[in-house]
Amino acid sequence: MKPVKVGICGFGTVGGGTFNVLVENAAEIARRAGRDIIIEQVGARRENPACDTRHTNMTADIFDVARNPDIDIVVELIGGYDVAKELVLEAIKNGKHVVTANKALIAVHGAEIFAAAKEAGVSVGYEAGVAGGIPVIKAIREGLAANRIERVAGIINGTGNFILTEMRDKGRDFDDVLAEAQALGYAEADPTFDVEGIDAAHKLTILSSIAYGIPLQFDNCFTEGISKITRDDVQYAEELGYRIKHLGVSARSDKGIDLRVHPTLIPETNMIAKVDGVMNAVAVKGSAVKDTLFCGPGAGAGPTASAVVADIIDIARGIQVEALSLIA
Amino acid sequence: MKPVKVGICGFGTVGGGTFNVLVENAAEIARRAGRDIIIEQVGARRENPACDTRHTNMTADIFDVARNPDIDIVVELIGGYDVAKELVLEAIKNGKHVVTANKALIAVHGAEIFAAAKEAGVSVGYEAGVAGGIPVIKAIREGLAANRIERVAGIINGTGNFILTEMRDKGRDFDDVLAEAQALGYAEADPTFDVEGIDAAHKLTILSSIAYGIPLQFDNCFTEGISKITRDDVQYAEELGYRIKHLGVSARSDKGIDLRVHPTLIPETNMIAKVDGVMNAVAVKGSAVKDTLFCGPGAGAGPTASAVVADIIDIARGIQVEALSLIA
Repeated sequence: MKPVKVGICGFGTVGGGTFNVLVENAAEIARRAGRDIIIEQVGARRENPACDTRHTNMTADIFDVARNPDIDIVVELIGGYDVAKELVLEAIKNGKHVVTANKALIAVHGAEIFAAAKEAGVSVGYEAGVAGGIPVIKAIREGLAANRIERVAGIINGTGNFILTEMRDKGRDFDDVLAEAQALGYAEADPTFDVEGIDAAHKLTILSSIAYGIPLQFDNCFTEGISKITRDDVQYAEELGYRIKHLGVSARSDKGIDLRVHPTLIPETNMIAKVDGVMNAVAVKGSAVKDTLFCGPGAGAGPTASAVVADIIDIARGIQVEALSLIA
Repeated sequence: MKPVKVGICGFGTVGGGTFNVLVENAAEIARRAGRDIIIEQVGARRENPACDTRHTNMTADIFDVARNPDIDIVVELIGGYDVAKELVLEAIKNGKHVVTANKALIAVHGAEIFAAAKEAGVSVGYEAGVAGGIPVIKAIREGLAANRIERVAGIINGTGNFILTEMRDKGRDFDDVLAEAQALGYAEADPTFDVEGIDAAHKLTILSSIAYGIPLQFDNCFTEGISKITRDDVQYAEELGYRIKHLGVSARSDKGIDLRVHPTLIPETNMIAKVDGVMNAVAVKGSAVKDTLFCGPGAGAGPTASAVVADIIDIARGIQVEALSLIA
């Protein structure tokens, strides 16, 4: 079977991680995909010192990648809304499958992107956009496909969970931990998306659309962050036998599907209460299976690359990676 | 798209659960599969009182199902080795895909079955054979396909975990809890497979073949059960800050892949130590993603049916459900 040719756009932490996973695990990946997967081109303004690109076709213009006739799958890892959207639509227009880790793009512009992909007969994979390395989109879309999903509840922002964990374990203040998270690279210079719950709301929007077969509806998600949580809140919760965790929760209600992101008191005996630091966890309740829980690293080069490459392999095997409900 | 027609062989707990999930969630399942999935025939010696079969084509001879020209997928839920193997091979010979929950059959006769399926160009799904409702086979085969798997460790026998949990929580003796598990239907009249680790070894054999791309090798799995664990063992472990859990563990070593099933001391702070009762959990360590953990109910009508129907939906969508490495 002929190889699948991939073009990577964006060469930061995740782009570099994806490059290295594809190179280092090439034999394993070929075994699972049933064919070779080759990096045909990388589009980025600068090199990534973690990657050996001496034998790689590099371009400074990411749109070269979207238009390269030799490329089958364009991997969008530049982030943000505008240029990313333009890039993805250009790739689709040129008949290429797309894999992205960009939850903001999918949560806000997913409907338009999926419509274009359907029109062009290509797939759009976004497993890496939600819960990092945990294959939870696949689990809901396929693994639990027999179920009417009743509830999804998760710790889906690693930065927020890291901050809450540090506040509890070490009795530190929110501002102090946030500054450290920024220094460690866990939090952005502008931490609004992480600490005000917007990033979690993007992810919950995507998970819920797949779980319940509803349109993406980011604007309908109640969103509250962790920036008002104090050291005292954390300590009082502890004394009462609870942990404060920042959760995204969606569930069926009389009025339809309810989407909420906010800090939550969880009994310390509950498994999700033990999910600490930058780990993520998503609990999914299905009508037949009942309670399941999926845990793993929510961010980082390796885990995110793991999810990006899983989508690439699925596409190479001919598996449609978007939820059928989103393209109907 | 034309409907997919399923024949169910065996109509006990899991057969009845599969029947009911397919009937009750028909709309959701059709949405996810992109086509209707219809129960064309049920083969069983007796009715299942939990199922309304007034409109179902019933036969007392399961081989009628394997030969029914209208059936696309045969679901083998009779259990055991000999007749189940004959049934599965007959279905494959007649060009039908097969879905089974029979881990013993796959662990021992998988190589022969996969070879026949490859020859006939059909798929064999066995997600329900390992860890009940947890879609862990799919997670390893597809969700973590980018990774070189380094270790798999799981609580994969619900009966054993129920017994150990009761011994710890209530200070009961092994024999006493086993008798209750038998009365509750968690354990078989002959509990050897559960309490001597054979069932866990079957499951670990299957997980490992997928994780590392190695042949099924049940005979190479070191197998020790929980029948020698005493109330004192459990209590001493507790005093030292540990839990005794019965684990299946496989990992890469200098000599290849090492497969072991035995009781294990786990620090009580480890998440897998909190997996109690009939719940299962599988920890998978991958080269890129690092540590992931998948938890859910390991047995029962609903969870097992969830996994059986997930395989049916995958096959209806044209997804090859066996690991490529097993059919190479």
